[in-house]
Amino acid sequence: MSKVCFGVDIGGTTVKLGMFDEEGTLKYKCEIPTRKEEDGKMIIPDICDKITEILTINEISKSDITGVGLGIPGAVADDGTVLKCVNLGWGIFNVGEKFKEIFGEVNVKCGNDANVAALGEMFKGSAEGEKNMVMITLGTGVGGGVIIGGKIITGVNGAAGEIGHMPMSDDEEGTCGCGKKGCLEQYASATGVVKVTKKILNSTDKASKIREIENFTAKDVFDMAKSGDEIANLAVDELGKYLGKAAAHISCVVNPGVFVIGGGVSKAGQFLIDRIEKYYKEYAFFASRDTKFILASLGNDAGIYGAAALILS
Amino acid sequence: MSKVCFGVDIGGTTVKLGMFDEEGTLKYKCEIPTRKEEDGKMIIPDICDKITEILTINEISKSDITGVGLGIPGAVADDGTVLKCVNLGWGIFNVGEKFKEIFGEVNVKCGNDANVAALGEMFKGSAEGEKNMVMITLGTGVGGGVIIGGKIITGVNGAAGEIGHMPMSDDEEGTCGCGKKGCLEQYASATGVVKVTKKILNSTDKASKIREIENFTAKDVFDMAKSGDEIANLAVDELGKYLGKAAAHISCVVNPGVFVIGGGVSKAGQFLIDRIEKYYKEYAFFASRDTKFILASLGNDAGIYGAAALILS
Repeated sequence: MSKVCFGVDIGGTTVKLGMFDEEGTLKYKCEIPTRKEEDGKMIIPDICDKITEILTINEISKSDITGVGLGIPGAVADDGTVLKCVNLGWGIFNVGEKFKEIFGEVNVKCGNDANVAALGEMFKGSAEGEKNMVMITLGTGVGGGVIIGGKIITGVNGAAGEIGHMPMSDDEEGTCGCGKKGCLEQYASATGVVKVTKKILNSTDKASKIREIENFTAKDVFDMAKSGDEIANLAVDELGKYLGKAAAHISCVVNPGVFVIGGGVSKAGQFLIDRIEKYYKEYAFFASRDTKFILASLGNDAGIYGAAALILS
Repeated sequence: MSKVCFGVDIGGTTVKLGMFDEEGTLKYKCEIPTRKEEDGKMIIPDICDKITEILTINEISKSDITGVGLGIPGAVADDGTVLKCVNLGWGIFNVGEKFKEIFGEVNVKCGNDANVAALGEMFKGSAEGEKNMVMITLGTGVGGGVIIGGKIITGVNGAAGEIGHMPMSDDEEGTCGCGKKGCLEQYASATGVVKVTKKILNSTDKASKIREIENFTAKDVFDMAKSGDEIANLAVDELGKYLGKAAAHISCVVNPGVFVIGGGVSKAGQFLIDRIEKYYKEYAFFASRDTKFILASLGNDAGIYGAAALILS
């Protein structure tokens, strides 16, 4: 058996594991539940057990593992120390050392999950071959990953790529999860676009099919917008405007070759990309006005691919 | 004689040259005029002549030069190709190759002048020892340099660090030099703060000592603000607010360890820093709220130090 590595994406609900060959081809993948009880102390042992099981089933020796990459939903220092990981119940500790303590000697690399997903899209996804890219993940919140020269930018506090908290508006009345008001996430996430739509609906008597859906979702807003609903289009416009402007800011800082748009909201597809790009071109500095916007292609597997890339690239 | 290198800062009016030892200590510096006539074709030969003259006077052989670093007022690709250099009359060409064609074989490295100045402040200035920093230069315009892991981020179009063109306002009526409206530069540069002050003066009948100065400058505005003038303080507040917010954006992208504030406007000193920091703390994401703001310390020599750092670091 030739060498393998593992890419592990630790989420709040499930841990995704992928086994890759040396070229980065996914050979096997599976999921286990994330056991968050007792401050998440079983999470690392569970991963070690699962990897051992996969090795046994496939008759692979531990010495054939080139490494284990871990994507973690929190800030991670360059040395693998988790700085904050509320979702998992974790305090501050060195994940790589803990892993090796349980699993035995192995090359372990850690990264923040949003950053690692960006690396995945660069490694085997829609940004394959790009060395300078920014991924924007539009889910419940807005996450980001900044890759320059093929490497993740983590920042001195692990806060690089926290683009969901770029200050986009001084007029916001609602409070973001981070405690500030007017963050990008408040307009451009799945929850954000629903809130924006409700606000517009409350401000007007105009007809809209959305009024007929009791607990409408971001998907409903995009579907209605695509079918020409005026209110839905105003909400999508606001999302596009804030994202386009945020991307223009990002370009003035790192000037990436491409923006990759991922996360649940990105299922709205090219319709979403077009709306972001329209506003980006208005706000961007002339030298970087033609930066590409593309959809992510790895979906939920971006994390395991990126975690593997921590080892393989 | 031990080895030396040269740091050259090509400006629109003068070219500054510095000779450095291997530790980066400035041993000699001088200036020559920038001859822009005939598409600036004499600029590189003039620099070569001056370096040869310095070598001759100091009895240093060409073989003792470890390299020549050049800071250029325009976008420069990683391979040394100048992409745009209107100020010098230059078209598109490879500066390093041109230099070697005239001077003979030598290690030549090029960078954009704002980026190179940032590198200088990291190399021997107020950010010495920092590997992750962003320099904001407040002069006639607003320039920037982003350094991550000790290296300049240039961006795929050479437009990284163009923070003067971050889109800060949708309500601006005036047009920026870049063609857009609402760029940071329109509020936070020397010319910007004067314009903002004039706008405030025109909008009110309030008394202000500034009304008594016919062609007041940014320095006048800061001096008046320091002495308690209300109008001047409103203008400085607007500058501080826009810069603080822009820095908060930057932190969400690359999360540097320090912001270095330089350029003519930075002569306003700690008074300016305090005003920027006040707003930064309001707008920044919590994890990066304590990022330091410091004044640049190398003044007009930042460029030659940074150009030398292209060779030495």
